[in-house]
Amino acid sequence: MSVYEKLKALDITLTAPAAPVAAYVMYVQSGNLVFLSGHIARKADGSPWVGQLGKNISTEEGKAAARGVAVALMGTLQEAVGGDLARVRRIVKLTSLVNSTPDFTEHHLVTNGASELLGEVFGDAGKHARAAFGVAQIPLGCCVEIDLVVEVA
Amino acid sequence: MSVYEKLKALDITLTAPAAPVAAYVMYVQSGNLVFLSGHIARKADGSPWVGQLGKNISTEEGKAAARGVAVALMGTLQEAVGGDLARVRRIVKLTSLVNSTPDFTEHHLVTNGASELLGEVFGDAGKHARAAFGVAQIPLGCCVEIDLVVEVA
Amino acid sequence: MSVYEKLKALDITLTAPAAPVAAYVMYVQSGNLVFLSGHIARKADGSPWVGQLGKNISTEEGKAAARGVAVALMGTLQEAVGGDLARVRRIVKLTSLVNSTPDFTEHHLVTNGASELLGEVFGDAGKHARAAFGVAQIPLGCCVEIDLVVEVA
Repeated sequence: MSVYEKLKALDITLTAPAAPVAAYVMYVQSGNLVFLSGHIARKADGSPWVGQLGKNISTEEGKAAARGVAVALMGTLQEAVGGDLARVRRIVKLTSLVNSTPDFTEHHLVTNGASELLGEVFGDAGKHARAAFGVAQIPLGCCVEIDLVVEVA
Repeated sequence: MSVYEKLKALDITLTAPAAPVAAYVMYVQSGNLVFLSGHIARKADGSPWVGQLGKNISTEEGKAAARGVAVALMGTLQEAVGGDLARVRRIVKLTSLVNSTPDFTEHHLVTNGASELLGEVFGDAGKHARAAFGVAQIPLGCCVEIDLVVEVA
Repeated sequence: MSVYEKLKALDITLTAPAAPVAAYVMYVQSGNLVFLSGHIARKADGSPWVGQLGKNISTEEGKAAARGVAVALMGTLQEAVGGDLARVRRIVKLTSLVNSTPDFTEHHLVTNGASELLGEVFGDAGKHARAAFGVAQIPLGCCVEIDLVVEVA
C-alpha cells in the first residue's frame, strides 16, 4: 500500500500545519533534510491538550496525544514535500518531550503513540532514531511535544 | 541592509565565543551544517544569568536573557564562518531550554527573545524551525540555554 | 594509536546495541550523518541505572553512568559503520539529558563522563558540540540519557 492508501485505511485526514504559536516557522529544509518544529498536542477541536503525565493524564491518554501529534507532523511534512509524501525517504530522528512529574517513567510508552503510527504509515522508511524524556513543562501546558528530522527526495 | 548593518543599527557588538564550561567545543561543522553547542544565558558582566521561570524571574526577563543568548550564538557563528556572517544561508533549527517550574507555560514567549532577534538580523534566512520547552535545571543554574543548527555557504 | 588501540588501552570492550525499549531503532544514517537514539544509562548487568541527580545519586556516580552510556553509544556506532570505527570522521553533536532535581546544577560535570571518553578514544575527531541539561525524568527512571549525531566516511 502507498502512504496515502495506508492513511485512508487508518481513516486519517491530514491537514495544513497550524500557525506557529510564536516567532518561528513549522519546518525548514536544508539539503535533503527537513527539520520540523516541535508540534504540541492538541485536542480534536484544535485547543491545546493540557496535562501532565504522572499527575492528571494517563499513559494511555498520553499515547493518544502523541499519536495526534504524529498526524499533525505528517500534515506539516506533506506541505514541506510539496504535497506528495511519497517523497519521504526516511523518518530520521524523533525527539519526544513528555510533560511529566519527577516520578513518571513511561515516556517511551507515551511516545510509542507517535512512533508506531509513523511505522504503520511509512513502513521501513518510518523506522526512526529517537529520544524521549520527561520535561518540566511545555508551552501552553501541553502534555506532549514532538519534533522530527526527515530525509526527503 | 546587510547583516552587519542590521547589527550596527541594533547597537549589537559580537564577541568571540566564551570558553566552553566543560569537555566540548562551541561548534562543529559537518558538510553545510554548523551545529552550535547549547549556549547559556549570561549577564552583561559574563556571569551566569541564574534563575527559574515561574519562581524568581519573569517572562520579560527570560525573554531578555534569551535575546542575549542569541547575541552570543551569533558571535560563535561568526567565528564558525571565518568572520563573515554573509555566509549564513539559513538558521535551520533552534532548540530552547527554559529553566522553569512545573507550572510555567510561556516558554514560547521567553524563546521569542532569541527568535525575533535572529529574524531581525538575518531576515528570511533567520526564519527557523524551533522547539522550546521547560527543563528541570540548566548547568550553573542559568535561566535559558539555546542551541542552533545553521546552514552555511 | 588507532581507535581500537585506544579502546584496548582503556580496557573497553564494545558490545552490540541493546534492543530498543520501544518502537524505534538505535540509529539511522542519512547522507554522511548517523543519528543515534537516546541511550539510557545501564548498570554492568544491563539493568537500568536508576536515580536522580540531586536526590539519590552523586555527581561522580552520574559521571560514571554517563561514561557507560558513551561506551554503549560506541557499540551502536560500530554497528552503524559496518564494524569499523575508523570510518568515524567526527562526533558532531552530543545531547545529554540528566535526570535531576530543580536544584542540581552540575549537568555539565556529569556529562563530561561521556565527553571526555569520546575525546580520549577519537582524539580531535571526538571533539563535539554539546547541549546538557536537567530533565524531569527519563524512561525507566534512568539517571542519564545521551544521543549523538556523528559524521562518517
